[in-house]
Amino acid sequence: MEIKIMKNILDRNQNKADEVRNLLAEKKVVMINLISSPGAGKTTLLEKTLGELTKKYRIAVIEGDITTDRDARRLQKFNIPIIVINTEGGCHLDSHSISKALGSFFLDELDVIFVENVGNLICPSQFDLGETFKLAIVSTTEGDDKPAKYPMLFREAKGVVLNKMDLISYTNFSLESFRKDLQMINPALPLLEISCTRGDGMNEWFEWISRQIES
Amino acid sequence: MEIKIMKNILDRNQNKADEVRNLLAEKKVVMINLISSPGAGKTTLLEKTLGELTKKYRIAVIEGDITTDRDARRLQKFNIPIIVINTEGGCHLDSHSISKALGSFFLDELDVIFVENVGNLICPSQFDLGETFKLAIVSTTEGDDKPAKYPMLFREAKGVVLNKMDLISYTNFSLESFRKDLQMINPALPLLEISCTRGDGMNEWFEWISRQIES
Repeated sequence: MEIKIMKNILDRNQNKADEVRNLLAEKKVVMINLISSPGAGKTTLLEKTLGELTKKYRIAVIEGDITTDRDARRLQKFNIPIIVINTEGGCHLDSHSISKALGSFFLDELDVIFVENVGNLICPSQFDLGETFKLAIVSTTEGDDKPAKYPMLFREAKGVVLNKMDLISYTNFSLESFRKDLQMINPALPLLEISCTRGDGMNEWFEWISRQIES
Repeated sequence: MEIKIMKNILDRNQNKADEVRNLLAEKKVVMINLISSPGAGKTTLLEKTLGELTKKYRIAVIEGDITTDRDARRLQKFNIPIIVINTEGGCHLDSHSISKALGSFFLDELDVIFVENVGNLICPSQFDLGETFKLAIVSTTEGDDKPAKYPMLFREAKGVVLNKMDLISYTNFSLESFRKDLQMINPALPLLEISCTRGDGMNEWFEWISRQIES
């Protein structure tokens, strides 16, 4: 019985996601769905990325949070359109709330929309938002076993950002083991090793994400 | 419609949770539900805790994971009963799977059951397993804003373990801000600041958890 209910919810989500995807294609807007555990550094990555990418793209942000507008407030300095979706306990964004949020933007005046999903390595990967692609963000302090233990996201993502490289030497994180697990799950998945605070790999990240936006 | 479905699922979960709670009370077994983000250190905390507490209590473990038995294998050295529940994509444990797992233990020969829930700061806090109490585990590398952004767990928990104190000086984690947010959400909530790798606060943790088990 629960399986049937889940299928209905996912079907309704998929229909709306297809509608969103068609609209974005028509308007030539790239939408990127950022997914990670709580505290992997999605908002910090967005801060750094907006600082660079707003020089060449017209960008908006959709902030998914259970409660509070804390993340959105960290991005206010960029003077770009930001919509906060508070899920009030809900563990992921869905295509219906994204569709509503898009209604508040002037899509003809945008190139890119970043969606910061609710901090959760599981549920958000099961709900298509109509995004152009998903990005997985993990951090070295979470441990190297996350792809093996939470494989769904890593099968779906177009790239993996490994953040907090500045802290790796204080942990028992094995890059070799992490890369090997990723390889098993999704052999072609690009891996970007960065530190948002220290700056490691940020230029490579800006170049890579710009290529994805333009391709 | 989705709200009604969710209510049905939660009602069915609650009935079974009540049954589990009654059974555990009758058998005088304390069941502790450990909840955190992926990578906050639940399994490492369990390793350290079993090393100490198996000296005085008869302990079993239920390991909740989406897939793999990696966490369970880390605990095999203790030679205690361990059941792995693979949720196959499910984002939390529920009382039905716990009830089945309890059927595999000899409850008359146990004092304590630790349940390591699926790594997720959201969904597990909404599903009563029939546990004696919930514990929230967070780590300094996740950032100090987790209680404010994910309040449900912190309202329900009997205590908060703040792990990875050895890494706090490499982050922008503010203990003052973290404590202030916790105070707003749940003023009486005990906070244990520890480092499983360096040993900070571990004796206080062993004493505190022993008191909870015996009370």
